Amino acid sequence: MRYTILGTGGIGGYYGGRLQLAGYSVSFLARSEYAHLKQHGLQVQSVDGDFKLDEIAVFQRPEEVPEADVVVICMKTTANSNLAEILRPIVRPGTVLLVLQNGLGMEEELKELFPEAVVVGGMCFICTFRIGPGRISHVDKGLIQGAVLQQDDVEIAEKIAGEFSAAGIPFSLRSDLRTTRWGKLLWNIPFNGLSVVMNANTQELLGCAEGEALVRRLMQEVVAGAKAEGCQLSEEQIEPMIEFTKVMTPYKPSMKLDFEAGRPMELHYMFRKPLAAASVAGVKLPMIAMLADQLAFLENSRMR
Amino acid sequence: MRYTILGTGGIGGYYGGRLQLAGYSVSFLARSEYAHLKQHGLQVQSVDGDFKLDEIAVFQRPEEVPEADVVVICMKTTANSNLAEILRPIVRPGTVLLVLQNGLGMEEELKELFPEAVVVGGMCFICTFRIGPGRISHVDKGLIQGAVLQQDDVEIAEKIAGEFSAAGIPFSLRSDLRTTRWGKLLWNIPFNGLSVVMNANTQELLGCAEGEALVRRLMQEVVAGAKAEGCQLSEEQIEPMIEFTKVMTPYKPSMKLDFEAGRPMELHYMFRKPLAAASVAGVKLPMIAMLADQLAFLENSRMR
Repeated sequence: MRYTILGTGGIGGYYGGRLQLAGYSVSFLARSEYAHLKQHGLQVQSVDGDFKLDEIAVFQRPEEVPEADVVVICMKTTANSNLAEILRPIVRPGTVLLVLQNGLGMEEELKELFPEAVVVGGMCFICTFRIGPGRISHVDKGLIQGAVLQQDDVEIAEKIAGEFSAAGIPFSLRSDLRTTRWGKLLWNIPFNGLSVVMNANTQELLGCAEGEALVRRLMQEVVAGAKAEGCQLSEEQIEPMIEFTKVMTPYKPSMKLDFEAGRPMELHYMFRKPLAAASVAGVKLPMIAMLADQLAFLENSRMR
Repeated sequence: MRYTILGTGGIGGYYGGRLQLAGYSVSFLARSEYAHLKQHGLQVQSVDGDFKLDEIAVFQRPEEVPEADVVVICMKTTANSNLAEILRPIVRPGTVLLVLQNGLGMEEELKELFPEAVVVGGMCFICTFRIGPGRISHVDKGLIQGAVLQQDDVEIAEKIAGEFSAAGIPFSLRSDLRTTRWGKLLWNIPFNGLSVVMNANTQELLGCAEGEALVRRLMQEVVAGAKAEGCQLSEEQIEPMIEFTKVMTPYKPSMKLDFEAGRPMELHYMFRKPLAAASVAGVKLPMIAMLADQLAFLENSRMR
């Protein structure tokens, strides 16, 4: 299939690069990095083998991007307010929108905007980042857990999963999108939020009893929110996830990196949407609400 | 009456100084500042009039302190683990222990240690601090709200209130100690806790919607904790307190000053004891618990 990659940061640069390296037709939409990418291509340092793409098909305006079967959305959700405008000239009936973003509710919003599209969500378990224009560093993992928004679309999702896997990107399909999204929030909400508010990486957060207790109780609220929506998330996932994070290389979550770099944080889709969903389902999540307000406060403070 | 002042910081230095200035017999117990106080006395810059006491009766060891009718406890609660040892040579049957500290449960603990003493709690509404050895700055207010632990002791509390008032320290008696303590926590818990975690003074905390919402919801939990214990605290006190704090001179609460100076924070009596009391009464306070753990985490981080 033909792919269009939106966003040429760590996620888009790495996955798009792998797809092109494997021989698939890949177009990139880039704004500020357009000229650099056009001239120098893409360079990837990867634990699974470095590679360099001297020429990539890069475009500056959505109208110029050639027709594709799959549009892979790799920008941060903080740019989603511009997404409709970007996608309008790109989406055709049956175009697959593969959403490789963190948070909850992006797929439902896209389906509402583009009912003619096939919407697939993807949770990336990867540690990759942009180290400069057209230069990506991939330091750990790479797995994608995908799920379709509508069950009719399983077949095309399986085809995408097959092509990604053939390109060296393990891609497994899960049965329920919403549950899979909540499952990723189980890690993202405590570690992204607390890393910013407590000014600490994963190891520091889990390095004392109070930090670990904060993580655990926030995770319990994520499970409560998921369950309120009828998703099959279980408290039994909490302890293994904490133990796994303890033995992980100390890690600064993306929200911490965003905050340190002065970029906006992914508050809306990672915190506000799950809170709103739980609230609609009749459940209050007071600690997550408090963490969200603390993050918003810090974002406001920074802008003053 | 004869007074002994424990602690020669902002509270002890100011109130003790005022009592001596008014002609009452006052002894001070001081440790690190002993030599300086002995030589230079006490100097107070006060919005209600500066004064200087060239000689004060200062003692270094509790055994040396002359007999007093009232022992005014003005150290931070972080020193309370040493309090029994300090008070043992000082307390006699009928000695009044006037507790001018922030938090919950100090009076009950003292009564258990010294059943022969009369225990009175005092909530200080004052802005005063130590600017150097024997030098105190008093910048705003000064009122004390007192309450007895046991109703039998109202008469002697009234006598103390009268003497303080005569010395220029407005001292009013309230009917219920526990309610009065919760009433002070209504301000102390949100503003002390958030000022440290959010790195902000009162004005900054109330300077955006999220900060104000955090303050308000924490106050709602304080009211819930107080009510669970049967105390007559009301949600109606919340909005006036927020509005009052908005027009106050921007203020760094004591816990923020302690944290910045590398001193231990008053977590136990200001957070853990109210949480434990609410828990015993069957009520969970998830936001206050989270704030307490965040503070403990920051204290641990600082010590690493």
